[in-house]
Amino acid sequence: MAINPSLLFLSLLLLFNGCLARQTFSSQQFQNECQINRLHAFAPQTRIRSEAGTTEWWNPNSQQLRCAGVSVMRQTIEPNGLVLPSFTNAPQLLYIVQGRGIQGIVMPGCAETFQDSQQWQHQSRGRFQDQHQKIRRFRQGDIIALPQGVVHWSYNDGNERVVTINLLDTGNSANQLDNIPRRFHLAGNPEEEQRQLRRLAQQMQGRSERGEESEEEGGEGEGEEEEEDNPSRHSRHQEEEEQGRESSSCNNLLSFNVDQDVIRKIQRVRGNRGTIIRVRDRLQVVTPPRMEEEEREERQQEQRYRRTRGGSQDNGLEETFCSMRIKENLADPERADIFNPQAGRISTLNRFNLPILQQLELSAERGVLYNRAGLIPQWNVNAHKILYMLRGRARVQVVNHNGDAVFDDNVEQGQLLTVPQNFAFMKQAGNEGAEWISFFTNSEATNTPMAGSVSFMRALPEEVVAASYQVSREDARRIKFNNKNTFFFTPSQSERRADA
Amino acid sequence: MAINPSLLFLSLLLLFNGCLARQTFSSQQFQNECQINRLHAFAPQTRIRSEAGTTEWWNPNSQQLRCAGVSVMRQTIEPNGLVLPSFTNAPQLLYIVQGRGIQGIVMPGCAETFQDSQQWQHQSRGRFQDQHQKIRRFRQGDIIALPQGVVHWSYNDGNERVVTINLLDTGNSANQLDNIPRRFHLAGNPEEEQRQLRRLAQQMQGRSERGEESEEEGGEGEGEEEEEDNPSRHSRHQEEEEQGRESSSCNNLLSFNVDQDVIRKIQRVRGNRGTIIRVRDRLQVVTPPRMEEEEREERQQEQRYRRTRGGSQDNGLEETFCSMRIKENLADPERADIFNPQAGRISTLNRFNLPILQQLELSAERGVLYNRAGLIPQWNVNAHKILYMLRGRARVQVVNHNGDAVFDDNVEQGQLLTVPQNFAFMKQAGNEGAEWISFFTNSEATNTPMAGSVSFMRALPEEVVAASYQVSREDARRIKFNNKNTFFFTPSQSERRADA
Amino acid sequence: MAINPSLLFLSLLLLFNGCLARQTFSSQQFQNECQINRLHAFAPQTRIRSEAGTTEWWNPNSQQLRCAGVSVMRQTIEPNGLVLPSFTNAPQLLYIVQGRGIQGIVMPGCAETFQDSQQWQHQSRGRFQDQHQKIRRFRQGDIIALPQGVVHWSYNDGNERVVTINLLDTGNSANQLDNIPRRFHLAGNPEEEQRQLRRLAQQMQGRSERGEESEEEGGEGEGEEEEEDNPSRHSRHQEEEEQGRESSSCNNLLSFNVDQDVIRKIQRVRGNRGTIIRVRDRLQVVTPPRMEEEEREERQQEQRYRRTRGGSQDNGLEETFCSMRIKENLADPERADIFNPQAGRISTLNRFNLPILQQLELSAERGVLYNRAGLIPQWNVNAHKILYMLRGRARVQVVNHNGDAVFDDNVEQGQLLTVPQNFAFMKQAGNEGAEWISFFTNSEATNTPMAGSVSFMRALPEEVVAASYQVSREDARRIKFNNKNTFFFTPSQSERRADA
Repeated sequence: MAINPSLLFLSLLLLFNGCLARQTFSSQQFQNECQINRLHAFAPQTRIRSEAGTTEWWNPNSQQLRCAGVSVMRQTIEPNGLVLPSFTNAPQLLYIVQGRGIQGIVMPGCAETFQDSQQWQHQSRGRFQDQHQKIRRFRQGDIIALPQGVVHWSYNDGNERVVTINLLDTGNSANQLDNIPRRFHLAGNPEEEQRQLRRLAQQMQGRSERGEESEEEGGEGEGEEEEEDNPSRHSRHQEEEEQGRESSSCNNLLSFNVDQDVIRKIQRVRGNRGTIIRVRDRLQVVTPPRMEEEEREERQQEQRYRRTRGGSQDNGLEETFCSMRIKENLADPERADIFNPQAGRISTLNRFNLPILQQLELSAERGVLYNRAGLIPQWNVNAHKILYMLRGRARVQVVNHNGDAVFDDNVEQGQLLTVPQNFAFMKQAGNEGAEWISFFTNSEATNTPMAGSVSFMRALPEEVVAASYQVSREDARRIKFNNKNTFFFTPSQSERRADA
Repeated sequence: MAINPSLLFLSLLLLFNGCLARQTFSSQQFQNECQINRLHAFAPQTRIRSEAGTTEWWNPNSQQLRCAGVSVMRQTIEPNGLVLPSFTNAPQLLYIVQGRGIQGIVMPGCAETFQDSQQWQHQSRGRFQDQHQKIRRFRQGDIIALPQGVVHWSYNDGNERVVTINLLDTGNSANQLDNIPRRFHLAGNPEEEQRQLRRLAQQMQGRSERGEESEEEGGEGEGEEEEEDNPSRHSRHQEEEEQGRESSSCNNLLSFNVDQDVIRKIQRVRGNRGTIIRVRDRLQVVTPPRMEEEEREERQQEQRYRRTRGGSQDNGLEETFCSMRIKENLADPERADIFNPQAGRISTLNRFNLPILQQLELSAERGVLYNRAGLIPQWNVNAHKILYMLRGRARVQVVNHNGDAVFDDNVEQGQLLTVPQNFAFMKQAGNEGAEWISFFTNSEATNTPMAGSVSFMRALPEEVVAASYQVSREDARRIKFNNKNTFFFTPSQSERRADA
Repeated sequence: MAINPSLLFLSLLLLFNGCLARQTFSSQQFQNECQINRLHAFAPQTRIRSEAGTTEWWNPNSQQLRCAGVSVMRQTIEPNGLVLPSFTNAPQLLYIVQGRGIQGIVMPGCAETFQDSQQWQHQSRGRFQDQHQKIRRFRQGDIIALPQGVVHWSYNDGNERVVTINLLDTGNSANQLDNIPRRFHLAGNPEEEQRQLRRLAQQMQGRSERGEESEEEGGEGEGEEEEEDNPSRHSRHQEEEEQGRESSSCNNLLSFNVDQDVIRKIQRVRGNRGTIIRVRDRLQVVTPPRMEEEEREERQQEQRYRRTRGGSQDNGLEETFCSMRIKENLADPERADIFNPQAGRISTLNRFNLPILQQLELSAERGVLYNRAGLIPQWNVNAHKILYMLRGRARVQVVNHNGDAVFDDNVEQGQLLTVPQNFAFMKQAGNEGAEWISFFTNSEATNTPMAGSVSFMRALPEEVVAASYQVSREDARRIKFNNKNTFFFTPSQSERRADA
């Protein structure tokens, strides 16, 4: 029987159903954090309320995040909410899931060179002129790259909630501390966040003693250490901490910088606001130029840069730290790097189109799959992949080096899944399609498709294909050349699976 | 008494005989994987039969390999045997101990640029033209460099067995998984290999509890978990797995890519062949140009490259990944970098003569010592050294920072020995001479001889030598200048030891 | 009330006094070596006497040094003392606390190119000409950079003791062994040093089981495993080792290189001298050109280099290893990079002014604070800081990411303190002022001040400051702009604190 490429993915599913997860080659002498027998798509497991938003952390002790050496956080900022200045011990990629706002980052050592001379700085009351580092608008679909140790703050000046997904690459060589994610707050009261993370860590340690299987269980919202979005209950928490009032006053590195009276005032009022506060009047001072204008100029700069430097030859080292572009929007369909009108699209961000990523050793991809379309099986050659489902759901399969399916399930909206380096995976959208953001722990993540026109199969001689898979020369030829798909398989193909 | 340089190595031996290994400074709080009190030359400890060859692994849990952060495998391919496509989670150096054949590697992302347009591609039956990535001939003495995540396959088209030694640098920064060596098989049945490695790991854990001393014991063939080279016994193993037939069918990432009928066929026939299969008819399609021609062209390319780029100034970054040379023959006596007609020769491969090694952070050396000649004591400044004895035997001594001899024994043909970074070592061939291949965990491994014309002694002022070793100025001068040897000591010198 | 910048530091002190150290978020699954709840300034905990000097080690198992991945040693060399040739498994920075002398280092592979042709080589007795690698003079205030694996020796040719502080960066990527500091001795008897370090390690393991708090306790001299500076007691130690005489003879890698008679002689006399010996007659052969001349020439070379290469554009890669400058004096007040006539000065050494530091991934700073002057609070963005107090004392405060003060105490002369990456710290000199040397685990350590004219506050918009700290726009403006200090606060400001 001739090989019908449209059947191949059903075969895959059937094969996987026949697979049992087994105890793999493991050794207690090794640090075997990536000896993964079973993955779970999982939701954040702690939620910390602030006055004007919430911070949710995925359990940084989960095996998959320890293997990848990353931590992940989701932040929700209500309209008029200000995320107080802080920095982290690890480089960050931050994806804007929804909403719009403004963000400032403070590049250390760049104080003089970054002064913004736009006219919107002058509008403070009186003749006084404010000066500060560059402020950027952000909107849904943006990725923002933040080096470790860099102070940043954000403000929601829109009318809907802002939601962000933050990847902290604690395994990065720039982090000389251990793998524990740390946020250094320069204002506000991070007490609640620290307390919750400690509680989570203790819980997780207990839980993992009773069995690792359940460690990452839980869909969107399940198993969360959730604080109700309820101001009165929130206040109760504040009262519980009343006794620690004196202590709480020191949870703020910036107390270094203000005088005693101010500190007393802060001690009285700060306790019940957390790290995301509501601004009384809207922040007035910051009205950057319209985003279209800002982006147009940035793109021009980028083009000038590329013209001079020759694109991919660039290693990113010559761009000075202070003037680096740190942001790009991946949501625009026109931005897609890979596109199939029947299946979907993928937009990629790496050190070639955002040079600061070379320093951060990170990259990202935003993908869209239409109803029941899929991504051809592939593996990442040089990076872990951390996937967050933005919308819809997808059936995902992940296979380790033993050929065991360590994951074969749906990833639902709001869930996270790690695909370790070299593990093969494929993905098929559900009936409503799927949209996701993936982060990679390499500034130039490379994958190898297992099928299709750029797969490794094309690179093998026909006779090697025939011998390896014990098929005829004719079948080998079909396997190599008949599959015209590049990265996607289309709904029509997957529909036919039902007929097989 | 005047100092006779010919006596120095006997002194060394005597000193070592008086040394007792002691418990060295050690701390359980440290990850002290390199606190080595005792090294052992050792043979592979598991052997997995395939239809047309065997795969043997050295115990990756042995202290010396964990200290060096590497794993080592030996592969034997019978004539007409095909090593099925696979890739590893770590960069590899592969040395061809004997035989000849062809190898294909699939560079990810290089699909379009690597198409080979030689006429020998056209000879497939009919008017159909096959296209694939470059295929290389290999022969005894070649070193092949393979980046992590890159698919490769090999075929023995000669008349004798092909034997290869494969070093996997799991400690390399390119491997983001843990230190466990992983082969990702894209065809065939790796079940047996996985099972043996698991069994080995469990054994080794038990063994190491009863005493670490015996962990690495065993000469060539001793202590091996050997499968008889016997097809019927081999079949028995297959029967044992009969129950796992369904499961075994999923041990193959490429099942992603073929349809259901093919998969059923594979399920029936694949089980008993392993990862090295016998090709029914010889592989016809691949007939690269004669090796001499291929190598001549490669050398010309290299020379053009060096002329343009200025040799040692080159940092290897500009060469594109896809067109990199990945192979060099080290067996040719004319290739030697260090040569002494009485003593032997050494051929070195590093990032300067094979630029891809800069990316792999590895280098190698092939050495030959004649009857009873030796290598002057030295230490590696910036790399671990993993030595495999190709032929003959050598007495080797290794000294740690406490001055303890952690190894003072023969290394026999087929055995492996690690010399950790900075540990001093010397080597003297037995009566039949010695040939070895050494791998280094640095792309530019540097050693410092302890004696001879380029030793550190030459760099010290005469008075410092006299004061440090409490000898007269005249003796210090003799120590510094009388020893004209560079890297070798010759048989005549070592013979005289018996007279001392 | 208007904000008075002079009050801010008192506020800081008060705040800290109200802080209790708490158990922070911790997880046994992590390697949490930087989960620091409490730091201690501490003195070396073992002292090893040699014939002409002492070697003191800080406990390498202390949490702070394990977090930073470094070890620290202090060496005292009496006049006419020779530190015998050795090398280490980690790059070193060596600061000359007092005295002057000469040092030779042996660059591996540089034997031919480093021959010094100065006339002072010719003066050996008779017509014989000595040749050796370059010898450098050193004096108080010098920093010397030593790559790992490089042989070095020093000689005190002055009239006062030489004291050096040696930082070993065992966490450096150049060290492929584990984190244990290792000195490989090429002459002399390191037995005592090894024995003491083993004893220390065992003690520390026991102690840490009984409670981590006391682990690093101890001021200058307290808790030391001190050997009296008393030759007879020292001899007793030698007698204790009499039984190990045969064994001790092998503690010397250079026994490789000398003949049997010499070795017997060494066995008889070497035991009681340690690794720093007294030279019978003064070392005659080495009389480098006067230091002023040498330094002038080095500076000229540096300037030529900078002129050609363009200073900060330089990435240090093109300078060949063999000709690199490895030394710079930081004590000269004119050398200061930051200077305030009322407060003090700071001299910085990094990859831009000493390019070899790029390879070593280290940098340093020497600071001076006058009576009761202070350094503005700040944090290191990309490095750990290891501070050694050279003279006087300073009150230092260190705050972790929870806002807990993990250190709030004086650092006395001769004590060491680690400030982990990203932890905030401030410093105020005592009545006699303070002088220190700090080492950083990055070739380009960057810090962010929390106050003053280049602080991150300046980079924030006024409204963000007002909202974050809940102060009025006017107060925010004062916080941002009224503090004209750059890095220091002056005695006059700190005096006023008493009035607050």
